Amino acid sequence: MATSNIEIAQQADLWPIGRIAKDLGIPDDELEPYGRYKAKVSLRHLRTLRDRPRGRLVLMTAVSPTPAGEGKTTTTVGLGDALRRIGERAMICLREPALGPVFGMKGGAAGGGYAQVVPMEDINLHFTGDFSAIAIATNLLAALIDNHVHHGNALGIDVRRVTWRRVLDVNDRALRDTVIGLGGPGNGYPREGGFDIVVASEVMAIFCLATDLADLKERLGEIVVAYTRDRSPVRARDLHAHGAMAAVLRDALAPNLVQTLEHTPAFVHGGPFANIAHGCNSYLATDSALRMADYVVTEAGFGADLGAEKFVDILCRTTGLRPDVAVVVATVRAMKYHGGVEVADLTHENVPALEHGTANLVRHLTTIRETWGIPAVVAINHRAEDTDAEIAALVAASEAVGVTAVVAKHFAEGGAGAESLAREVVRLCEAPVAARGAGAAQGTDATRGADAARREDAAHAPDAGQEPGGLRFTYPDDATLWHKMSAIATRIYGASEVTASTAVRAQIKRLQDEGYGRYPVCVAKTQYSFSTDPKLRGAPTGHAVDIREVRLAAGARFVVMVCGDIMTMPGLPAVPAANTIDVDDDGRVVGLF
Amino acid sequence: MATSNIEIAQQADLWPIGRIAKDLGIPDDELEPYGRYKAKVSLRHLRTLRDRPRGRLVLMTAVSPTPAGEGKTTTTVGLGDALRRIGERAMICLREPALGPVFGMKGGAAGGGYAQVVPMEDINLHFTGDFSAIAIATNLLAALIDNHVHHGNALGIDVRRVTWRRVLDVNDRALRDTVIGLGGPGNGYPREGGFDIVVASEVMAIFCLATDLADLKERLGEIVVAYTRDRSPVRARDLHAHGAMAAVLRDALAPNLVQTLEHTPAFVHGGPFANIAHGCNSYLATDSALRMADYVVTEAGFGADLGAEKFVDILCRTTGLRPDVAVVVATVRAMKYHGGVEVADLTHENVPALEHGTANLVRHLTTIRETWGIPAVVAINHRAEDTDAEIAALVAASEAVGVTAVVAKHFAEGGAGAESLAREVVRLCEAPVAARGAGAAQGTDATRGADAARREDAAHAPDAGQEPGGLRFTYPDDATLWHKMSAIATRIYGASEVTASTAVRAQIKRLQDEGYGRYPVCVAKTQYSFSTDPKLRGAPTGHAVDIREVRLAAGARFVVMVCGDIMTMPGLPAVPAANTIDVDDDGRVVGLF
Repeated sequence: MATSNIEIAQQADLWPIGRIAKDLGIPDDELEPYGRYKAKVSLRHLRTLRDRPRGRLVLMTAVSPTPAGEGKTTTTVGLGDALRRIGERAMICLREPALGPVFGMKGGAAGGGYAQVVPMEDINLHFTGDFSAIAIATNLLAALIDNHVHHGNALGIDVRRVTWRRVLDVNDRALRDTVIGLGGPGNGYPREGGFDIVVASEVMAIFCLATDLADLKERLGEIVVAYTRDRSPVRARDLHAHGAMAAVLRDALAPNLVQTLEHTPAFVHGGPFANIAHGCNSYLATDSALRMADYVVTEAGFGADLGAEKFVDILCRTTGLRPDVAVVVATVRAMKYHGGVEVADLTHENVPALEHGTANLVRHLTTIRETWGIPAVVAINHRAEDTDAEIAALVAASEAVGVTAVVAKHFAEGGAGAESLAREVVRLCEAPVAARGAGAAQGTDATRGADAARREDAAHAPDAGQEPGGLRFTYPDDATLWHKMSAIATRIYGASEVTASTAVRAQIKRLQDEGYGRYPVCVAKTQYSFSTDPKLRGAPTGHAVDIREVRLAAGARFVVMVCGDIMTMPGLPAVPAANTIDVDDDGRVVGLF
Repeated sequence: MATSNIEIAQQADLWPIGRIAKDLGIPDDELEPYGRYKAKVSLRHLRTLRDRPRGRLVLMTAVSPTPAGEGKTTTTVGLGDALRRIGERAMICLREPALGPVFGMKGGAAGGGYAQVVPMEDINLHFTGDFSAIAIATNLLAALIDNHVHHGNALGIDVRRVTWRRVLDVNDRALRDTVIGLGGPGNGYPREGGFDIVVASEVMAIFCLATDLADLKERLGEIVVAYTRDRSPVRARDLHAHGAMAAVLRDALAPNLVQTLEHTPAFVHGGPFANIAHGCNSYLATDSALRMADYVVTEAGFGADLGAEKFVDILCRTTGLRPDVAVVVATVRAMKYHGGVEVADLTHENVPALEHGTANLVRHLTTIRETWGIPAVVAINHRAEDTDAEIAALVAASEAVGVTAVVAKHFAEGGAGAESLAREVVRLCEAPVAARGAGAAQGTDATRGADAARREDAAHAPDAGQEPGGLRFTYPDDATLWHKMSAIATRIYGASEVTASTAVRAQIKRLQDEGYGRYPVCVAKTQYSFSTDPKLRGAPTGHAVDIREVRLAAGARFVVMVCGDIMTMPGLPAVPAANTIDVDDDGRVVGLF
């Protein structure tokens, strides 16, 4: 591209954040500015919104991505801008970028081209300090564990069974596996320990699921950090840690308000990984946006098998959020990749491979519409090298399963390039439910639609896999953990079976027996494939999903099933982005792409 | 006390920070608010102040403290408020509290009683995120080192000689000595490594010495992080790390503006330890305050042998700052402690012990006035249990060496309680230099005084131990490292000699040969004694100061001489303050004392 993301962002004409807030009806007193273009909206104000009806919720998801990503964030921004251009009161909700990847491979994560949230460099580099607060809370808890052991260990913590890990917002492979407490009695008891990246932490997941400060503190107290020799859990509450942790997180919990290049209001708040955690921005941001806007676009990480599945089965299940429509981002490039084309050849036209690769898109569409009952539209995130024939083939593949596919050119054109997409989103939201094309194949009772769902009590979680509001979950609450994992694997991933070692099966059984069976399952697996093998592209079937490890996230209230190799602490590449990121003498950040 | 610090702070009637800034002549556009009561002042605005004359600089220091501390921060706040009450345009400059101690033993560090900076809980708990930015910059550099080694080690880093340590703002003894890079080839090369607390980091020291963003980046590039097998230094610049580090620190470098309970403007910015580092708030804050106010009170950590010595020999030497007067905080309690009374008995009257203990005060006064040529006043930080006889004895001991001692009751009464102190400070600043009682005993040429010094070019560091502006350094620039250490030990600590092992002597010689002999020395030693033995109270003489270890801080441009046992990563006590810190459902932080 001729102009880099950061150059476009730095040339933007930003409005003072007070003006953005005023348009949303946020009183001056309830806005906590962080500089001129960022602000936190007070939790006190959010409480006053709770009786307002929710607007329409648009879930941004995607096909299984290529390593470069397919542009969900960019499309979220573009759609938000486009909805406003066609006259709708729209907001967007995004996750905060993790610093680790910014300095590693990925560069910025605030959209791209003419579809960005700004100030781009602030959002990418430290922002309002939320992730640091989450890191401090996590590491404070870790210090309190080792300190408790050091000072006599009244709780009888088994240092071999401390499950709580420290975190940093840096990609640092050297910290994955460490031995700590060396150097003699003054430094405590030596034990194994390790560090994850902040976005993989349970505190991040809790932060993004919490409905208010009291809920946050309650959940922090429930965290299981270790076990005693007789396998009794030791919780953060037992260490009297949760109050101080909540105090550290108090300011961070208020959502961050920024704007897009076209002045669409945006909450950028929280950012759990979509593999080890649930991959959506904070519930508080999304729920509050829904009370202030008629349309809210929010993004769930990676493909629909990961982020969207967790959005539905974890976030919607436990909070009452209900998506009215899902936008599935697909690229010509990704479809060719799933059709077997190697990365180096993706810029060449290849219609047969693309047609073959659309199996990946169709699988995701089937999940969204038939399994979950959510109406869908495909957004073709346009790239300059896409050919007319390729786009026609992608549109045809989508229409063959009854889903409209719209070319969106927001990267190059801003919101104007996504107006067709916005109109299709509005059409789907306003169509009579029976005509919205979701769930029709099954003829279920998913007919009351989102308007009815919206009137549901947000705080009341439905307790069955199929609920009257139209949304269907992948599995019911009362299924066993094993059954939940099986349901995800067979219904979403196309697997034929779930496997696990005897040890893992025993661990699952133990959690089930201890009462954690009521929690949803959060699958940690590769984002590149429906299977656990990142090289298995397209829409594989008949594969086995092996559960390698099970982790209880008692405060987040889900059970993580680790399937395949998942890094909770990434490494830096041979030539990290940090090498080129710089700041000039006038304080202008350069080299962030 | 009847009302806790946090209760007093939360009942305060704060002014919007914009009002405080307006009184200082800071344009709205140059203020970056962080919430309603905190703001950063833009570096751009600070640049516009550089041609203004500096106001008068008051250095707040103290006797050798007891473990509870003698109240320098509280007295800084009280004096600032009192100066305004008697009609002077005053500002104060303080260090930011470290979170680790807040959750450990110390509780808050934003003053106390009716002499506090506010919002107290924000300042203590994460504030504007500066320390997190410093931690990220430090840990990013660490990750880049191990990443470089992992990806082929083109620079030939000897993993046994990596000197750069990671940091957290948590007291966590288990991280002092660790082994990292375990778990196989994917996790890099195993090596020893460890964590310090953020305030002990070289990045913190650099942050507080930097004169602008360009200087910050230049210094970050100079950091020596490791050595090759043939002992050549490897710098942050060699890893292309300094640009990204400076980008992370860009926003943090702008000083944080808050207010006291009585609306005196306060910069609270940076916070290096006064043992391992130089122990003063950022130069940018102090220098900028001096351009905006007629009186600036700034605090140097611990007793005058540590913080004030570094203020003079490191900060003043390299930046041209010149204190006009030093306030030495003394308490009846500390004098009795130095007279041999045990902590449990300090609340009982004991005039003979107190008189004996004033030797500690007299030693500090001699250093300040005769060695450095700075006029001094003693502030008796009043406590309810002090008896009239004790106070009279303390006043007499001070007057016996020609220094006025003033009782200050700001803790209980706010600025009104410190008006006498403020008047004495003004009197000393306005007195003819010859009558100010500093340096007279030596009959030196320290007669031009601070007004002349103020006209010196701030950017030009003097190059001799004795300069025309009145301030004298402990040693000249061109002394050897060993001589510098000897000068501090014999002239300030009352030691008879400096000792060191053959290995340490060789290390010092190596640094001298490599050209680092021009740097000042930064002594890391206990704050409880003039000697390296914390139990040696009063004013010991004839002791030996043993240099245990030498560390090059090439970016901070000083050489750390570690004398005795110094923790760069504290631990938590058996019952940490974190156990009682909490936040209620309305977001009010409680239990911070």
